[in-house]
Amino acid sequence: MACHKPAYVTMYDMLSSLKEGGTFLLNCKWTDAELEKELPVSMKRMLAKKHIRMYAIDALATAQKAGSPKSQNMVLQAAFFKIANIIPYEQAEVYMKAAVEKTYGKKGPEVVKANCDAIDMAVSELREVEIPEWWATTKVGAKADIPADAKADKYYTEFISVCNAQEGNKLPVSKVSADGSVPTGTTKYEKRGAAPVVPVWDITKCIQCNQCSYVCPHAAIRPVLMTEEEAAKAPKSFASKPANGFAGMKFRMQVSPLDCTGCSSCANVCPAPGKALKMTDIEVATKAEKANWEYSQTVPVKNVAPTNPKNSQFSKPLFEFSGACAGCGETPYVKLVTQLFGDRMIIANATGCSSIYGGSAPVCPYTKNDKGEGPAWANSLFEDNAQFGYGMFLAYKARREKLAADMHKAIELGCSDALKASFEEWGANMKSVDVTRKCADEIKAALPEAIKAASGELKSVLETIYADSDCIVKKSFWIIGGDGWAYDIGYGGLDHVLAQDEDVNVLVLDTEVYSNTGGQASKASPTGSVAKFAAAGKRTKKKDLGMMAMSYGYVYVAQCAMGASQPQLLKALTEAEKYDGPSLVICYSTCINHGIRMDMGQMEQKKAVEAGYWQLYRYNPNTGFTLDSKDPTASYQDFLMGETRYKSLKAAKPEVAGVLFAKAEKDAAARLESYKIKAEESKEAQANKQ
Amino acid sequence: MACHKPAYVTMYDMLSSLKEGGTFLLNCKWTDAELEKELPVSMKRMLAKKHIRMYAIDALATAQKAGSPKSQNMVLQAAFFKIANIIPYEQAEVYMKAAVEKTYGKKGPEVVKANCDAIDMAVSELREVEIPEWWATTKVGAKADIPADAKADKYYTEFISVCNAQEGNKLPVSKVSADGSVPTGTTKYEKRGAAPVVPVWDITKCIQCNQCSYVCPHAAIRPVLMTEEEAAKAPKSFASKPANGFAGMKFRMQVSPLDCTGCSSCANVCPAPGKALKMTDIEVATKAEKANWEYSQTVPVKNVAPTNPKNSQFSKPLFEFSGACAGCGETPYVKLVTQLFGDRMIIANATGCSSIYGGSAPVCPYTKNDKGEGPAWANSLFEDNAQFGYGMFLAYKARREKLAADMHKAIELGCSDALKASFEEWGANMKSVDVTRKCADEIKAALPEAIKAASGELKSVLETIYADSDCIVKKSFWIIGGDGWAYDIGYGGLDHVLAQDEDVNVLVLDTEVYSNTGGQASKASPTGSVAKFAAAGKRTKKKDLGMMAMSYGYVYVAQCAMGASQPQLLKALTEAEKYDGPSLVICYSTCINHGIRMDMGQMEQKKAVEAGYWQLYRYNPNTGFTLDSKDPTASYQDFLMGETRYKSLKAAKPEVAGVLFAKAEKDAAARLESYKIKAEESKEAQANKQ
Repeated sequence: MACHKPAYVTMYDMLSSLKEGGTFLLNCKWTDAELEKELPVSMKRMLAKKHIRMYAIDALATAQKAGSPKSQNMVLQAAFFKIANIIPYEQAEVYMKAAVEKTYGKKGPEVVKANCDAIDMAVSELREVEIPEWWATTKVGAKADIPADAKADKYYTEFISVCNAQEGNKLPVSKVSADGSVPTGTTKYEKRGAAPVVPVWDITKCIQCNQCSYVCPHAAIRPVLMTEEEAAKAPKSFASKPANGFAGMKFRMQVSPLDCTGCSSCANVCPAPGKALKMTDIEVATKAEKANWEYSQTVPVKNVAPTNPKNSQFSKPLFEFSGACAGCGETPYVKLVTQLFGDRMIIANATGCSSIYGGSAPVCPYTKNDKGEGPAWANSLFEDNAQFGYGMFLAYKARREKLAADMHKAIELGCSDALKASFEEWGANMKSVDVTRKCADEIKAALPEAIKAASGELKSVLETIYADSDCIVKKSFWIIGGDGWAYDIGYGGLDHVLAQDEDVNVLVLDTEVYSNTGGQASKASPTGSVAKFAAAGKRTKKKDLGMMAMSYGYVYVAQCAMGASQPQLLKALTEAEKYDGPSLVICYSTCINHGIRMDMGQMEQKKAVEAGYWQLYRYNPNTGFTLDSKDPTASYQDFLMGETRYKSLKAAKPEVAGVLFAKAEKDAAARLESYKIKAEESKEAQANKQ
Repeated sequence: MACHKPAYVTMYDMLSSLKEGGTFLLNCKWTDAELEKELPVSMKRMLAKKHIRMYAIDALATAQKAGSPKSQNMVLQAAFFKIANIIPYEQAEVYMKAAVEKTYGKKGPEVVKANCDAIDMAVSELREVEIPEWWATTKVGAKADIPADAKADKYYTEFISVCNAQEGNKLPVSKVSADGSVPTGTTKYEKRGAAPVVPVWDITKCIQCNQCSYVCPHAAIRPVLMTEEEAAKAPKSFASKPANGFAGMKFRMQVSPLDCTGCSSCANVCPAPGKALKMTDIEVATKAEKANWEYSQTVPVKNVAPTNPKNSQFSKPLFEFSGACAGCGETPYVKLVTQLFGDRMIIANATGCSSIYGGSAPVCPYTKNDKGEGPAWANSLFEDNAQFGYGMFLAYKARREKLAADMHKAIELGCSDALKASFEEWGANMKSVDVTRKCADEIKAALPEAIKAASGELKSVLETIYADSDCIVKKSFWIIGGDGWAYDIGYGGLDHVLAQDEDVNVLVLDTEVYSNTGGQASKASPTGSVAKFAAAGKRTKKKDLGMMAMSYGYVYVAQCAMGASQPQLLKALTEAEKYDGPSLVICYSTCINHGIRMDMGQMEQKKAVEAGYWQLYRYNPNTGFTLDSKDPTASYQDFLMGETRYKSLKAAKPEVAGVLFAKAEKDAAARLESYKIKAEESKEAQANKQ
């Protein structure tokens, strides 16, 4: 039995199925003395009672020693074969090294050597742990660290905790949600502590730009804006400084180490001289920041208009701590959308990565604000997501029309003047977010008394309005998915829904490849990229989804890359949501399938735009087409060589690569040219209008 | 019992289920004396034996008298109620006239009156037929007119004739095709005689332009090009005159009255002064032309290159006598494609009108040339037709690659020098129609002897090549469907297949509405048109399918309207087929759902282009975009008022119509503008190339 993640010792019962005298391998950096404190009572007792032979190894330290920090898997594999005696270790070593050659051969001899070194290093670093006999009856040990709010949540104690302990098959049917719904705001209970290193904030260097928070894929780093009083009530370690641009307020950047995945994206984008974020051992950081994080969650969120990237981050992310890859290029987009519109958002999500990290039972990363408002989210299929979301929109539209008719009836039946005024104001401003919010507050506040006072038909109409009051505030409909959905499998439906000219918003997380599905080429994959079904480099160019949608003339379309321009993305999302018709926002999303350093994803996006690989634009049917990115300033070919999906073709088939990459560059230039023509046409059309 | 179609008397057994003393109504223009000859023996005997009361009426003449030639259904309904005594006739009359008001009220008071007059006229025109007692034992009567070639075809005698007599449920399972295949070239056996009037050719006036043949939806009128010898062998009535442009040859235009549906399209497009075609009673024409038609089918088709519309018509249509509506706007396109490429054509057909008239068991309108070559055709579903056709293409491509490898092997194994030369020439010219045709002839001729002479591995390889010799000639792949398929239900797949950059051709028969499905709006329906689900006029504009396909840059795209330009269509189809990549040809197809005179469909297409409602263009990735239609010369709004799908909105909701029609005109102008920009860009790009 082997456990590769130390945090699991208090989370799962691993040893009850291990036989008497069995062998147990634990990956940890704990010394024997530390193990005494870190292992839970039940595990210590079982180790002693069953006379289990226990081994420990620090896989990360070992891999680092071997010069290959990523080779923890090799270290742990070698350690496992060394002690498991399934086959003689000498034989296992030969097989493992042959597999290394086969798997990493394409990446070069250095990678192969580092992995082989990691195997050798594992054997020397492995140590046996002596189990004291008295552990068999010990009453002292570590306990799982369950947040206080989780303990108070029945859904956590009765469902999530059981599933997370991998004991879900013991749950009675009565505990399972009959309609498949999962309460939102539940990922925060998991506190996975998945990162080896997490960012620590240096208050002296921070320039309060909030870029770290903007790019964080997991919402694990957040600015805190406090009054003097709130700052005074905080723990001592909760340092803060005067907030730039918010007179009399205090500012602090708060990390949640146990929710962080350690991608380093925040630290890498930090523009402060000398960097205000430094990646630090998680245990050190957790000890220092756990209480601070908890306090930060009690500070009321201040009402700051999201007029620029910095200010957008003072809104609470209503999408947090998902199970996406560390450094995921998609989730920062989703998070930002929830910060802007989350409190009145309804989401239809296509199958793909975003449906996996968006809806992994027993928890849900979508969450609520202080008022209990947050996104409603559902996933149907790969092929019908646009239609699915459009159906939600139509249902809402029909319910609102009914609501308007009911309000009209209530007025006819003689409701109070105050209610009449609110109903009429609402009826005249159904599409205004601000007005409908105000009316919702007025109507919801007045109705209970009004219902009590009314009788007969008026009473029943007012009751119906009250029952439908979730429709008073203008909702924000979002249809979200990846390029596999939008360009390929769901395109027929997406095109159909865009063509209907209704007020729905589409967010395409474009990784240029089927990501969760397994790395297959999609029509979003560019010429020359290597993917499944395109192992010899894709022959055809990337489909211009935005251009096709623009051909309708009434669809708002934007192309964005957060890493290239945070303000352009914010502008595009804001305009898209505001546009009274269909909107399509295509977001370049870096992905592990690209073969890049995921901690540098934001910089890679910037490079993509600088090299003319990806363009930024916004097309608003009311105001025309704006090309937001400048002419390329960097080499297209250099950009390709920075990503394994291209580089590997050059290594495997240099001649094919040469032809395809030249074609790819030409395709990108033609695409840019077509955007320029569109911008020119637009300028002329606007000039003619005036 | 009522029979509305006189031809049915010899086709179906109608009276065996009628009770003793029952009533029988026959629609015909036969006098009592003529009935003596026109009714078959079995019917005459049954009429007399069962003492059936027989009534006759000439519905067409009656309706014409009432001033409403289309109201034959009213005439026959009234006649039926008059003699059937199901309810008192006075009561039936009230109901029928109320139904007329309800059904035709929207079309105006004149239409209502004409229909009511037809009802009244029916009662006075109905006459009882006296049945002579001796008919009970008569041995004289009419016989079904079965063509000689049908009688000789086992599939006709054992299957088609049984099904067509509506006796299909008596067929044993062993007679049913196990794989669902239907022999082609079988509609010609039906000789439906469905038309009341058919064209008769005036040799003195004909200018030999072949336009009548080009536009005929049913391939029922064809030019005959003959040698002097062939002309000399013909029946006396088979008049011909010197063929313009073909020295020493004779020309004749031949109609097949029994295969014609009487749409008058041919007569209406005839540009000859005084018209060379005149619509005439079918019986008169059949008597005059039946033998001539039969002789025309024995005259070998001359090999004339289809370099212009006239010459294209000397090729045999490999799509004939389908069950499409009289005056169908789609079938002339399908027919022309088969004249150009039919002998090596493989068709995947989407569900819709084209799958109904294209594949109605027990017969198939696709047919073969003298060599037995003709289209292979299949229909899968509404939603997968592009993929279905693409799959056929991939199978063919793989088989051809295998064939190439086998030829290579045969050369290595030492096949004859002659075969080697053919194999090598083929391998170097696999995409050339002419060369692969020549090689196919050579290889197929040489192989049988070569196989006999060979032994061992060479023998087996040559046998394999012989088995795969259907792949030698370059095939022409066509994916055919309507706008419901291409713009809507099958669009996701269509887009995907076009994106693959393979050599398939797509023909879209754009009626701007779901036709066979029942007249629902599709994304091809323009703003303001009335359709199911768009009863108050469609709010969104027509999707620009061609523009979307052009965004790939490697898809050949054309928009055509046969009635506006026969040469442009011919050019587009020829270029599309020749282009070594995906092609999309979108053809404006007039349809009964438009609410127009179907005999004027070609002229309506011309008007559509002249009014700027529809544009003609060709986009060839190799040479750029060409706008083939001129700036509008006619009124857009006048064009709309000529079609019920628009006119009815103006009648029902004049204000809405005003707004939508103005928007429609603006949309069309914007579309034209975008094509002009594209043409301009193209010109510049071509100039830069040089």
